[in-house]
Amino acid sequence: MSKARYVTGLRAVEQLLAQPAAEITRLYAEYQTANPRVESIIAQANSRGIEIQAANRARLQQISGEARHQGVVAEIRRSQILDEGALRSLVEKKLTDGDGQPLLLLVLDGIQDPHNLGACLRTADAAGVDAVIVPRHGAASLGPTVSKVAAGAAETMPFASVANIGKVLAWLVEYGVTAIGTSDAADGTIFDCDLGRPLALVMGREHSGLRKNVAQRCDELVSLPMRGAVSSLNVSVATGICLYEAVRQRASAD
Amino acid sequence: MSKARYVTGLRAVEQLLAQPAAEITRLYAEYQTANPRVESIIAQANSRGIEIQAANRARLQQISGEARHQGVVAEIRRSQILDEGALRSLVEKKLTDGDGQPLLLLVLDGIQDPHNLGACLRTADAAGVDAVIVPRHGAASLGPTVSKVAAGAAETMPFASVANIGKVLAWLVEYGVTAIGTSDAADGTIFDCDLGRPLALVMGREHSGLRKNVAQRCDELVSLPMRGAVSSLNVSVATGICLYEAVRQRASAD
Repeated sequence: MSKARYVTGLRAVEQLLAQPAAEITRLYAEYQTANPRVESIIAQANSRGIEIQAANRARLQQISGEARHQGVVAEIRRSQILDEGALRSLVEKKLTDGDGQPLLLLVLDGIQDPHNLGACLRTADAAGVDAVIVPRHGAASLGPTVSKVAAGAAETMPFASVANIGKVLAWLVEYGVTAIGTSDAADGTIFDCDLGRPLALVMGREHSGLRKNVAQRCDELVSLPMRGAVSSLNVSVATGICLYEAVRQRASAD
Repeated sequence: MSKARYVTGLRAVEQLLAQPAAEITRLYAEYQTANPRVESIIAQANSRGIEIQAANRARLQQISGEARHQGVVAEIRRSQILDEGALRSLVEKKLTDGDGQPLLLLVLDGIQDPHNLGACLRTADAAGVDAVIVPRHGAASLGPTVSKVAAGAAETMPFASVANIGKVLAWLVEYGVTAIGTSDAADGTIFDCDLGRPLALVMGREHSGLRKNVAQRCDELVSLPMRGAVSSLNVSVATGICLYEAVRQRASAD
């Protein structure tokens, strides 16, 4: 089963067109524009045989639910969001016939802001994450804002929505996956931690961090060094720093 | 000389109150609210002897220029933005009687989005950056959105606005400061680069990256590894990864 979604804005639609695997079912575009980027998007969509519909600003806003559509909205077919069973299959497949890279999962324990979720998906894609896992309730999920900020990654990154993050971390242990949680209160830093192992990196929500029951399920808790007057980093920046420390350690071990 | 500025929103004002050095001249708050965080902010401001003025939503929006003020706006006195001469003095002072840490400057060559600038300031503060440098024209500068996203760092981080970034990089060389620029096209990655030296990290603008004349002034160009379908990282995430790689290298050299 799959359902239609919308990708909005010049940058996001350009990124989407750059992905041969992306299934774009229709492009809505504002023809009365002097913007050469819109023209180029229309030309590319044409050459890929994608159905194009002219739409004015009000119509584009109605379709996408966003005022800042910049004259283009792509309708895409994305795979269903993974449930816990599908996530388990993905993990098993990667561990049995993987690409040689250790498993890397990103668990976002309750991110509220769709901009932050989108930024995390974009970074997760760049860092080679195998799947992003979020709780089904009380957290941001996929939508037009996430797709726009993720610049294409929301359509390609395996995305699992699960009832209980703690339960998933519990069965990941059985597969030899180590859960590393981030916490301001931890003594050791992410830089002292071995990230070359099959790994689930667990990030907390904005302001309040990891929930207690999730932190207790982590094998190790680590912090990021803070040298200034501000007490924390934005969650998408912190996620980027942690994921790229894994990228760094894995590259230097090659 | 100094001028009044406004810090808007619960999180940003809470962060500001947590900084003993922050000069808050007045707090505007919505009294008719059931929000305990607003109550707590009013109590803290009271205990610091800060003048408090009751204001309704419309008034708060008028003062701050923001609809999402969440019931609190702090008026602060911030130092003047540094010009090139003041930046040179800051660099000289740090190099002659520094704190033992090598100089770390962040040069943002034309960031357009105030959210990205604010996120970069917040991260720069956390990473212990000595000053952030931006071009005077064609780039985002300080304002209410930047202050809100920077969560206090816009008021404390030395911030220089200069006519010509290339010229600043040229005289920084004379002080033994190495300029490291980021570019998708570079062969080496940030992880292969020695960041323990006195350093200016130079980040390009969203989408288009470093301008050619600025890239030419850099001593080295480095990239960030990309492992997915998306071709780039958000600039504030990339800035965080690069700055924290410097933090990591410097800590492991201690």
